[in-house]
Amino acid sequence: MEMWYTEKQTPSVSLSLKTAKTLHVEQTDFQHLAMIETEAFGRMLVLDGMVQTSVMDEFVYHEMITHPALYTHQNPKNVLVIGGGDGGTIREIIKHPSVEKATLVEIDGRVIELSKQYLPEIAVALTGNPKVDVRVEDGIKHIQESKDTYDVILVDSTEPVGPAVGLFSQDFYKGIFEALKEDGLMVAQTESPFFNADLITNVNKRLNNIFPHVQTYLASIPTYPSGLWSFTMASKKYKTEDVNTESLYNIDTKYFTLDILKAATRLPKFVQDLVKGD
Amino acid sequence: MEMWYTEKQTPSVSLSLKTAKTLHVEQTDFQHLAMIETEAFGRMLVLDGMVQTSVMDEFVYHEMITHPALYTHQNPKNVLVIGGGDGGTIREIIKHPSVEKATLVEIDGRVIELSKQYLPEIAVALTGNPKVDVRVEDGIKHIQESKDTYDVILVDSTEPVGPAVGLFSQDFYKGIFEALKEDGLMVAQTESPFFNADLITNVNKRLNNIFPHVQTYLASIPTYPSGLWSFTMASKKYKTEDVNTESLYNIDTKYFTLDILKAATRLPKFVQDLVKGD
Repeated sequence: MEMWYTEKQTPSVSLSLKTAKTLHVEQTDFQHLAMIETEAFGRMLVLDGMVQTSVMDEFVYHEMITHPALYTHQNPKNVLVIGGGDGGTIREIIKHPSVEKATLVEIDGRVIELSKQYLPEIAVALTGNPKVDVRVEDGIKHIQESKDTYDVILVDSTEPVGPAVGLFSQDFYKGIFEALKEDGLMVAQTESPFFNADLITNVNKRLNNIFPHVQTYLASIPTYPSGLWSFTMASKKYKTEDVNTESLYNIDTKYFTLDILKAATRLPKFVQDLVKGD
Repeated sequence: MEMWYTEKQTPSVSLSLKTAKTLHVEQTDFQHLAMIETEAFGRMLVLDGMVQTSVMDEFVYHEMITHPALYTHQNPKNVLVIGGGDGGTIREIIKHPSVEKATLVEIDGRVIELSKQYLPEIAVALTGNPKVDVRVEDGIKHIQESKDTYDVILVDSTEPVGPAVGLFSQDFYKGIFEALKEDGLMVAQTESPFFNADLITNVNKRLNNIFPHVQTYLASIPTYPSGLWSFTMASKKYKTEDVNTESLYNIDTKYFTLDILKAATRLPKFVQDLVKGD
C-alpha cells in the first residue's frame, strides 16, 4: 500500500509526497497539526494542510528569513521572532555573535512541543540556550506591548489564513515599527510571486506607508507552492544594498552566502512589477 | 467531473494540475506527446509525461536559457538551438540585434508542427522570419558535421532519458566545442539542484574537461520539478562575470534583467558544492 500526502497549493495545483509514516496528528487550540515522514523530504510539519517545514529543505527558509536581516543590521543584539514555533529561525539567529537575546513568541505551544519531539535538528536551540527566551503568547499582543525594544523582528508566520491573518495587516506593521529601536528592521515571509501576486503588492504598499526602506527578496523552497518564495524586509535605517560584504564574518550555512545577500534582491522583472504594484 | 494531469517528478514527488481540456495526444516517432490546457498554467506541452513548457511560465525558461549566453558573448551572429522545437528559445534569440541567423535543429518535427498549432505565442518566430532556419534533424549528427561555425549553441533538450540521453555526454560536448567558433560559448539546461544533484556535478566535470570557463546558474520555474532549475554555460573566451552590464542594450523580458545576468550565477552554498563535486 502506498500512502501519499497531497496538498492543494491552489484550487488547481497539488503537490503530492509519498509518505513513509504518519508520526502525529492533532487538532490544537489554533490549527490542525500533523507530523509526517515523507520519502523525498523526510520529517515534515503540516499546519492546516500546508507544509510548514521539512528536515530536507528547511535550511532555505530559515536561513533566508534570518541572515539578510541580521547582516543588514550588522549589530543586532535583541531579536524577536513572531511565530516560528519549530525553532529553525531561532537556531539561525544565534549563529550571529552580536546577538544577546533571541525571543520566540509563538501562539501555539503544541507546535513548539511537537517540534522538539519530532524535529529536534530544527528545534535544537529552543532548549537550554541562555540567550533564547521561548514564550507561548499572541504575537499581535506582544507587539502592541513592546516599544523601542528590538533591533530585528522576524515574522515567521503561516499563510495569511486562520491564526496568521492579522500578521499581514497595516496595524500589525505599525506596531512592529514602534516595537523596533530607531535603527531597527523587520522581515516577513510574503508567499509566492507566482501564486500570491496581490499579497506581495499589498504588503509592499502597507510597509512603504510606514518604513523608509522596503525590499522584497527571493529564495527557492521546493515544498512551498511554485517553489519560489518571497520575503520582504522593511527598515528604518539600514539597507541591504549598502552593506559592505567584504567586511562581514562568515557563518555556517547551506543556502545563504554573502554573495546571495545582494543577489536575492535582484528581482525578476515580473516580481519588480508586483513590488511596484504595476 | 474534474480532470487532473499528474506528473511523477520523482518516484516520491508528484505535481498535479487541474486540466480544462486535452487538446491533442499522439505517439510520435520519438516520444509520447500531449498538448493539454491547465487552469493554473494554461496550454502546455508534455513529452513522455514531463511538462516541457506552459504558456504561463515558459518565459522563465526561454529567457534564461538564451539571454545570459547572448549577453555574455556580446556580439552573437550565428546561433544554434539543439532541441527546443516549441520555438520559445528562437523567439528570444532574435530579440538580440546582432543575430543574423538562428538555426533550430529539432529531431521531432511533430513538436514543431503541434507547437505552431497549439502554442502560437511561443512558436511565433518559427514561421516567416528570414533570420530563422528550422531543420528537422538529429542534433548529435548536426553537431558532428559542424566545425567552427556558431557563436552560441543552446542545448534546449528534454530530460536525460529517451531521445535526449546523448545530449548530456562528454562526446557531445566535445562536438559542440568544435562546432563553436574560437570565441564561442554554449548553454545547456541541467535539471534541478534539489532532485538531480549528480547530473549537475557530472555535467560540470565533463564541461570542465573541455572548456576553460564553466558556470552554472539558476532560475525559478514552477512547473519543473522542485521549482528551481539549473543551466550551465561553457565558454571558450567570454565570462559572465566580466560583462559590463552598464554598456548593454535592453530587451523586452518578463524574468531576465541585466541585474539578473550576474545575480543568477551567485549560487546557494549547496549548489556551489554540487558544481565543485564536493
